[in-house]
Amino acid sequence: MEPYYAVIFTSRQTKNIEGYSEMSDLMETLAKQQPGFLGMESARNEVGITVSYWQNLENIKNWKANLDHLTAQQKGRKQWYSYYKVRICKVEREYEFER
Amino acid sequence: MEPYYAVIFTSRQTKNIEGYSEMSDLMETLAKQQPGFLGMESARNEVGITVSYWQNLENIKNWKANLDHLTAQQKGRKQWYSYYKVRICKVEREYEFER
Repeated sequence: MEPYYAVIFTSRQTKNIEGYSEMSDLMETLAKQQPGFLGMESARNEVGITVSYWQNLENIKNWKANLDHLTAQQKGRKQWYSYYKVRICKVEREYEFER
Repeated sequence: MEPYYAVIFTSRQTKNIEGYSEMSDLMETLAKQQPGFLGMESARNEVGITVSYWQNLENIKNWKANLDHLTAQQKGRKQWYSYYKVRICKVEREYEFER
């Protein structure tokens, strides 16, 4: 499977998260339809972490430039997020455990 | 800052998480004392995601082999986790937004 790519998106929200949940669901639905999409995992407590997985850097670039996604990014900066950081990573090795 | 390394640890817990919280706090304290440690972020809902950041692969290898950490890993497989996956990643690019 490796190498493939991971986008680590960490964020802190503002107090005004109206509309966030719907947009988040929509973005997840859209991301899954993009070429090269491999998977996505999210969790949020004080900090939110979403990691999405992609076949290559071109896939990530295309998703970043997707028009609906650009709208979501803009709303995120304007309203929902007080902070976020995006890290583009190459997954070099992986292993797993299953009971 | 780039390149540096990220370890993405995703997990699902069993129903028997006795002792997990204390061990998790201890591992965070210990990780922060390791050479090359750059930072760590965690969140958990249905899935838990912990991402730790390191200067190089050697730092990650050393932390994986740390004796206290090995004990925690063993307890994790025996009791706390029904599933986990570890991905070792090279952070190639990053950008951030702050309000």
